[in-house]
Amino acid sequence: MQTDLRGRDLITLSEWTTEEIETVLEVASDLKRKRALGEPHPYLRDKVLAMLFFYSSTRTRASFEAGMAQLGGHAQFIESKTTQIAHGDTAKEIGEILGRYNDGIAIRNVDWGVGNRYIREVAAASRVPVLNMQCDIYHPFQILADLLTMQEKLGPLRGRRITISWAYAKSYQKPISVPQDLLLAATRFGMEVRLVHPPEFELMPEVMDEARANARASGGAIELLDDFEAGFRHAEVVYAKSWGAMLRAKDEAEGAEIAARYTDWITDERRMAMAAGHAIYMHPLPADRNVEVTDGVIDGPRSVVYDEAENRLHAQKAVMALTMR
Amino acid sequence: MQTDLRGRDLITLSEWTTEEIETVLEVASDLKRKRALGEPHPYLRDKVLAMLFFYSSTRTRASFEAGMAQLGGHAQFIESKTTQIAHGDTAKEIGEILGRYNDGIAIRNVDWGVGNRYIREVAAASRVPVLNMQCDIYHPFQILADLLTMQEKLGPLRGRRITISWAYAKSYQKPISVPQDLLLAATRFGMEVRLVHPPEFELMPEVMDEARANARASGGAIELLDDFEAGFRHAEVVYAKSWGAMLRAKDEAEGAEIAARYTDWITDERRMAMAAGHAIYMHPLPADRNVEVTDGVIDGPRSVVYDEAENRLHAQKAVMALTMR
Amino acid sequence: MQTDLRGRDLITLSEWTTEEIETVLEVASDLKRKRALGEPHPYLRDKVLAMLFFYSSTRTRASFEAGMAQLGGHAQFIESKTTQIAHGDTAKEIGEILGRYNDGIAIRNVDWGVGNRYIREVAAASRVPVLNMQCDIYHPFQILADLLTMQEKLGPLRGRRITISWAYAKSYQKPISVPQDLLLAATRFGMEVRLVHPPEFELMPEVMDEARANARASGGAIELLDDFEAGFRHAEVVYAKSWGAMLRAKDEAEGAEIAARYTDWITDERRMAMAAGHAIYMHPLPADRNVEVTDGVIDGPRSVVYDEAENRLHAQKAVMALTMR
Repeated sequence: MQTDLRGRDLITLSEWTTEEIETVLEVASDLKRKRALGEPHPYLRDKVLAMLFFYSSTRTRASFEAGMAQLGGHAQFIESKTTQIAHGDTAKEIGEILGRYNDGIAIRNVDWGVGNRYIREVAAASRVPVLNMQCDIYHPFQILADLLTMQEKLGPLRGRRITISWAYAKSYQKPISVPQDLLLAATRFGMEVRLVHPPEFELMPEVMDEARANARASGGAIELLDDFEAGFRHAEVVYAKSWGAMLRAKDEAEGAEIAARYTDWITDERRMAMAAGHAIYMHPLPADRNVEVTDGVIDGPRSVVYDEAENRLHAQKAVMALTMR
Repeated sequence: MQTDLRGRDLITLSEWTTEEIETVLEVASDLKRKRALGEPHPYLRDKVLAMLFFYSSTRTRASFEAGMAQLGGHAQFIESKTTQIAHGDTAKEIGEILGRYNDGIAIRNVDWGVGNRYIREVAAASRVPVLNMQCDIYHPFQILADLLTMQEKLGPLRGRRITISWAYAKSYQKPISVPQDLLLAATRFGMEVRLVHPPEFELMPEVMDEARANARASGGAIELLDDFEAGFRHAEVVYAKSWGAMLRAKDEAEGAEIAARYTDWITDERRMAMAAGHAIYMHPLPADRNVEVTDGVIDGPRSVVYDEAENRLHAQKAVMALTMR
Repeated sequence: MQTDLRGRDLITLSEWTTEEIETVLEVASDLKRKRALGEPHPYLRDKVLAMLFFYSSTRTRASFEAGMAQLGGHAQFIESKTTQIAHGDTAKEIGEILGRYNDGIAIRNVDWGVGNRYIREVAAASRVPVLNMQCDIYHPFQILADLLTMQEKLGPLRGRRITISWAYAKSYQKPISVPQDLLLAATRFGMEVRLVHPPEFELMPEVMDEARANARASGGAIELLDDFEAGFRHAEVVYAKSWGAMLRAKDEAEGAEIAARYTDWITDERRMAMAAGHAIYMHPLPADRNVEVTDGVIDGPRSVVYDEAENRLHAQKAVMALTMR
């Protein structure tokens, strides 16, 4: 167990050791059990988290705010449009000032080429932990929830077969932070990863390099495919969602035209039947129903999407309790 | 006293027994006294309520949020327009996910033909109590506050004469949840109810049927009038406000034209003088001043509108403490 | 020490005695030390503050909300546009109703000729303390933070030389509450005050009269200048910011044209070098960088703007703890 986490930022899991991540998952399980039993766990009594949203999100906001309250503290919901953040305050000023008023700063900024840089600038000026609620590159709390969910359903992750796949959606420019960060985590935990996407929908090359190094170090594997159906065969985890931030198109019309070549990349019952008998279907939600995935799959017996969404709460509470105390 | 209320939804008071409602009112009085004495009452320490507003409301939001804080917990203020609720998340997803993050879900959705159905869909998917902060049909917490206020001012309600009357307002399409739910409650508590409205401004027929059955069962009475002034005579409670959701008009112009026939349906001092000498004037606020009611009445000695507004707080705290603990 | 502050409004420091203000500053220092040590100070456990914002503000909202949470209570963030405050509820109704739901009401309304009057109307109807988070005339919590910061940096304020100066900014109509309230406070504390502004950018005459009376009573002094550079000479505190609410211009174009005569009123390193060797630079933020002040000054060794911003938190907590308990 690695417990020296007080004061630490969580901007990307790549800066946390695998043992530190395992500690988070153990604490998350413990907090989940305590909540089920109604056992008080006010590890952050009267402490305050500033949540800065450049774009809002139901799950992220609701789970961080509820989590802080359950830990005995408070989370401020600050939208950039309703404050002077968007016009006037520099990242340094935000870090300096919110870092003095609060015990932690959580930020969601998914603007391509901007989000991660902004979060790092705030962190450089902040005296308190800065938590990444999703940027253009990473989504560490979603991935912690995903790891926890997979462990609960499948046990130890080493050697487990996960398919991380692109899926079609009308708004084809969705962030790539989830598949990228999941790829990095799955390879670190020694999983056998299939990454499946049309040739046009790549991930960042530096992320691919890091994932390959992770797999070598952990004894895991990465296989790249561009055949949607092949991705399902024998998979134990199917994690299929749309992304598109890296697509190179000369304009929106061309982008939409390229994406439209792959409208059949939808997770349906027939394809799920090609996966392992005990395979689970995962999605960070909200899903584009009957476009990314059929109702039959997402509402069906293999879907663990609600447990996955719930685990956001427990994973986030674990990180907050460990870093902000 | 009926105390088996843990985990219960409050979507309509019709699903709660009269004895359960009386328990709520007793607890509300007790909590009001405790607050007056500064006596801590943290019955929901570190518990969390999600408040979903499809339309905001000063009183409703401020009283629920303050109430949760006074009970030691926290209420999240979630507006549908700032989240993915309005576009993407189904009612089932909201119920499943917010039900896992929170200890209760309160919803305000007054869309005609939509609100109540939406709340029920969320409730069906939620593992925690769902509270109706006003829908198209019911407004149970307003009515609990009204019952508490009438008891405080008049004592036991059996046999008391209440006039529930339509009043003119420029925006004639106001919700009918308040008069409907008040009619249902007053008839259950054995009051002698006069319902007064122009012929065009009816309540829902199923609500009328239920109210008649209530009156029969309780020994109360309902009298229907379409003469505004006649409604005031000998009334002990005057509850006159605008509504119009059920008006059948072919377009807005015709609707406004129909409503404009009744611009003289305003509560003024002359009419209040026709009521009983100890009569009280009630309104859930905000009132359309000098249109629905004169300043002289609403700011005058018979008006109990601020006590009525205050009692929202205590009634809501009572229900939350009983259901969400 | 003057401690009879329970239940008191803070609308303007002019209604508080100097000894009462000193008590606030002592409590603020004590709370700052407690926070540095992680010592719990839940003086307002489960108490609630309603914060009404007619215009939002990062620092003000974040510091009040964090402060209430650290004191064990909760602050509701209410924006007038998202509620019925802007259309429907009178100031009296707000005071009556929010005063019953909450243990304090804080208001920010900087509308010229409106803000202070609105706050006073709410206060007249409220049973709980009303706190002025900035109006058109005063900004008492900013000034408390400023006094605390100056004491920390310079020791006792009597006889210290402060320059309160106008500076150019593109949006020339900024509120005058900060310079006015700072002038009133500095003269009360016996400081030697230089007030520097172009002839067109005056403060309110009644404020000037009160400041002169303050200086006479305290043994301090006021000097008026219209020469920006002269203001820097030997100053121990340079507090230079834009304002313009009192500017008499027939239209916006003329107003902008007048302001544009003074674009060289910018605090830069050369001018700061004219001040005393130990001089500090202060600004309430957000500053118009490289227009009001150069990056070199605001980010330089004489700038205390972050400590000044931090002290908002401690000063506000002190007033809330003293008035709302």
